[in-house]
Amino acid sequence: MCVKPPSHTIRPVMVGIFQRTLRLRTSLRNLSLYSTVSSKARFPPVAFLSPFLNCGSCRKLHVGSEESKSSPGTVPKRLPFSRLTEEDLAYFRKILPGRTITDPDLVESSNVDWLNSVRGSSEVLLRPQTTEEVSQILSYCNSRNLAVNPQGGNTGLVGGSVPVYDEIILSTSLMKNILTFDDISGILTCQAGCVLENLSLYLDERDYMMPLDLGAKGSCQIGGNVATNAGGLRLLRYGSLHGTVLGLEVVLADGRVLDCLATLRKDNTGYDLKQLFIGSEGTLGVITAVSILCPRKPKSVNVVFLGCETFEQLLKTFQLCRCMLGEILSAFEFLDSECMRLLNAHLKLPNPISDCPFYIVIETSGSDADHDSQKLHNFLEEAMTSLLVTDGTVATEEAKIKALWSMRERVTEALTHDGFTYKYDISLPVERIYQLVTDMRQHLGDRAKSVVGYGHVGDGNLHLNITSPAKDPALLAAIEPFVYEWTANFQGSISAEHGLGLKKRNYIYYSKPSQAVALMGSIKAMLDPKGILNPYKTLPDNLK
Amino acid sequence: MCVKPPSHTIRPVMVGIFQRTLRLRTSLRNLSLYSTVSSKARFPPVAFLSPFLNCGSCRKLHVGSEESKSSPGTVPKRLPFSRLTEEDLAYFRKILPGRTITDPDLVESSNVDWLNSVRGSSEVLLRPQTTEEVSQILSYCNSRNLAVNPQGGNTGLVGGSVPVYDEIILSTSLMKNILTFDDISGILTCQAGCVLENLSLYLDERDYMMPLDLGAKGSCQIGGNVATNAGGLRLLRYGSLHGTVLGLEVVLADGRVLDCLATLRKDNTGYDLKQLFIGSEGTLGVITAVSILCPRKPKSVNVVFLGCETFEQLLKTFQLCRCMLGEILSAFEFLDSECMRLLNAHLKLPNPISDCPFYIVIETSGSDADHDSQKLHNFLEEAMTSLLVTDGTVATEEAKIKALWSMRERVTEALTHDGFTYKYDISLPVERIYQLVTDMRQHLGDRAKSVVGYGHVGDGNLHLNITSPAKDPALLAAIEPFVYEWTANFQGSISAEHGLGLKKRNYIYYSKPSQAVALMGSIKAMLDPKGILNPYKTLPDNLK
Repeated sequence: MCVKPPSHTIRPVMVGIFQRTLRLRTSLRNLSLYSTVSSKARFPPVAFLSPFLNCGSCRKLHVGSEESKSSPGTVPKRLPFSRLTEEDLAYFRKILPGRTITDPDLVESSNVDWLNSVRGSSEVLLRPQTTEEVSQILSYCNSRNLAVNPQGGNTGLVGGSVPVYDEIILSTSLMKNILTFDDISGILTCQAGCVLENLSLYLDERDYMMPLDLGAKGSCQIGGNVATNAGGLRLLRYGSLHGTVLGLEVVLADGRVLDCLATLRKDNTGYDLKQLFIGSEGTLGVITAVSILCPRKPKSVNVVFLGCETFEQLLKTFQLCRCMLGEILSAFEFLDSECMRLLNAHLKLPNPISDCPFYIVIETSGSDADHDSQKLHNFLEEAMTSLLVTDGTVATEEAKIKALWSMRERVTEALTHDGFTYKYDISLPVERIYQLVTDMRQHLGDRAKSVVGYGHVGDGNLHLNITSPAKDPALLAAIEPFVYEWTANFQGSISAEHGLGLKKRNYIYYSKPSQAVALMGSIKAMLDPKGILNPYKTLPDNLK
Repeated sequence: MCVKPPSHTIRPVMVGIFQRTLRLRTSLRNLSLYSTVSSKARFPPVAFLSPFLNCGSCRKLHVGSEESKSSPGTVPKRLPFSRLTEEDLAYFRKILPGRTITDPDLVESSNVDWLNSVRGSSEVLLRPQTTEEVSQILSYCNSRNLAVNPQGGNTGLVGGSVPVYDEIILSTSLMKNILTFDDISGILTCQAGCVLENLSLYLDERDYMMPLDLGAKGSCQIGGNVATNAGGLRLLRYGSLHGTVLGLEVVLADGRVLDCLATLRKDNTGYDLKQLFIGSEGTLGVITAVSILCPRKPKSVNVVFLGCETFEQLLKTFQLCRCMLGEILSAFEFLDSECMRLLNAHLKLPNPISDCPFYIVIETSGSDADHDSQKLHNFLEEAMTSLLVTDGTVATEEAKIKALWSMRERVTEALTHDGFTYKYDISLPVERIYQLVTDMRQHLGDRAKSVVGYGHVGDGNLHLNITSPAKDPALLAAIEPFVYEWTANFQGSISAEHGLGLKKRNYIYYSKPSQAVALMGSIKAMLDPKGILNPYKTLPDNLK
């Protein structure tokens, strides 16, 4: 009934040093142009930090300059951490024989983020397998005042997962054991380095699924997902990780192990400490194990692709959908006609329906195929009759489902072909999300090549993307701080699901009052007094 | 589309000073025997604290004695807070004219918990209406070193909601405004003092519902619900408040207002500070406003009452149920034959089906009555055919639904007629929950009158109740620490949903490691350095 392998035994979920499912990266990696900043240079002036993601064709790293340091996007000065010595390496080799990596070619991929937008210059990559090893590493680093960059699958979008200077990289990639699974309650516990897709496959065989799904699932690790409070496609249905994560094991900056790895749905004995680490981007502790509540795998999945004339009609369709599809609704996503134009032009993806200003992707997941299709039929009839939607198509078989989903999922890829892309991940009251796109278009006039909007309507999460033929400081100056001020004006979040990391740390005040940021600083100081954990991330430079 | 009355205007949700929906209390209040400890006595030796709930017929308060102080259940010594002076009262009367209550008869009901098991001796009850007033009160109390007992509906079960000594009672009862409701996203924001049932009624008219439901809904307030991380009947379906609460406004011990009142489903800008206050029982700050994600109201509700021969079959029925009812399952509760015997004997409630060792209450909530009843029919057919259940009855109309639910909901009442009741609220891996009842029966032999088990199977939450003809120290010594050790042995929680409050604070180590408790202490010291907020609660006495 309850699968409980001995703690920390190796299970065949993932094998091989440096073997990663690189599905996410392959399409972009061949386009990348690395800068000439050598990873061997001991502590070079650190790579300039663009707060924007680069398009594939323009991707390169930029060396920072002194004068750029006044901009919120620039890299802060290196803090006075100790420098790595041979004695340090000897210690690491002793506790991690064969897993203390110093070969620059092997350390390289952990020094650069997958967008190739941020580069550090770490000289050592540590690959612990157990919580005890993580504890030994941190205890040592804390006593030596050595900075540490915890790293999972390195799929983050805000420069949170790579070193900024010479921080020691602590990778969780070898911590890939599933510890327990209870097939009555659906509660899974595993080490932090388990790749999300491997967990999904493990659960799939047991008629369960992970409560989160991301495009990066082939590479990202559950520890990193939790550390960044990853959102993704299933949030509308299964809620955030603050609700589904039941327990965490965390190693604190000084090496103390905080065991909050409960496997209980209810536990009101004191403060819920694990919550502090969910979304703290590795700045408060290193997550070494996770317990998470997994839902049953649905027996029936349908996808519908619809067209709407106005965003107001789209919102009304969302309301109707919540009302008529109720408990089987599992996704409500949208893209605008500009996205469709890019999909047609750059990826040759034909519009599956007639041209409309707005498109919706709806997914249902349920336990009875007949009931689900009947609910869907009733909903579509009502949506069509009341003229909320003007055209649409339904998919029930896997190939067509995948094809319809690709209209939403491949927008990012289409954008990389359109030019240099300025990307924003904004959370707003749902009725406001498209207004930002309209206002931005009006504000920019013909200065931008394309201004497109797509995202998760159900979560009030807009992905606003602006392209130009090349990097364009004048365009950037027109976009910012306009986009942040606009978002703040409507009590939105300037980072819905990507986090702050290095790139957005100084924009925090647009979404959080100074009292809250000051309290974050106090928590950081309490848990990591020397500030060795993932420095230069999440918290703003001007924090007292 | 979005209901946004001006902030802090009075809405007709709840009216009248001291008017409370006392539905919860009426059946017990007339049975209560108050002790003779006068609420006028300035600082009497504080009432003895029983860690157990009293049965109605035996309910009285006990004056503590010095020698009882070594037991974990005893009241700690009064901490060196300042004593209330006439100058203090003059200040409070100035900022809260007419809402600074000192009439002992009016303060009385706030000094005693609703179980009449704990009594404080506060001389003043403050009834702020706004966050600013709460801020002024705390700022003043912090500077004067006056202890404060935040109080919502005072429906807690662990002595967390009443003063222990002379703490100033800060009631949120007049903070009862609904601030906004967005009928697209279902996000509600309101002041902390809104009564849960009033919020439910407000939402019901708008086709939404609260994501939590409690027996105490007629009195309990949303701020208190959040402060205690209330669980209740809908947790299986809608998850915990850590997932559904989107934002909080909190006044810190020194009067600073922490505005984390976001109304966004996604916000990854820094640490999720609001989580700290969910379940902290008023010891870290006073919650003044809440934003919460509300689900759509179901169109169809069914209830089934089933009988099983063994607890193993009951668990298999739960698995089958999750599989076949899937997304419409909203509750899976159980009671044992001992509960049924008490319902028959003391409340004359007849068993709606034939006698069985175990009974199950299943509730479904869905958006299509035909689909729901068909799913239920299929499930029941399979459960009967495979001999998992031996008998059962289904209710679709409200009166019968209510009658079936009462078999589960009135067990507590039946117990009060059986004798002095020792109550435990235990969370365990779901496959273990009944083993504790069996082991306890065997362990106690004929020393107990009744040993009964019921609770939320879906949440792994057992309510273990043991009765005896009268209070019985020998029986208590046989129950404890056995029950806590047994629970700790299976990584359970000694308080699934009730919290620790005053009564269980010293049992925390059975469910939390010392590292975690120490960190809780650090958080308390950081946020409330003088310890004025709800002293003697949640954290253990021996905390360094």
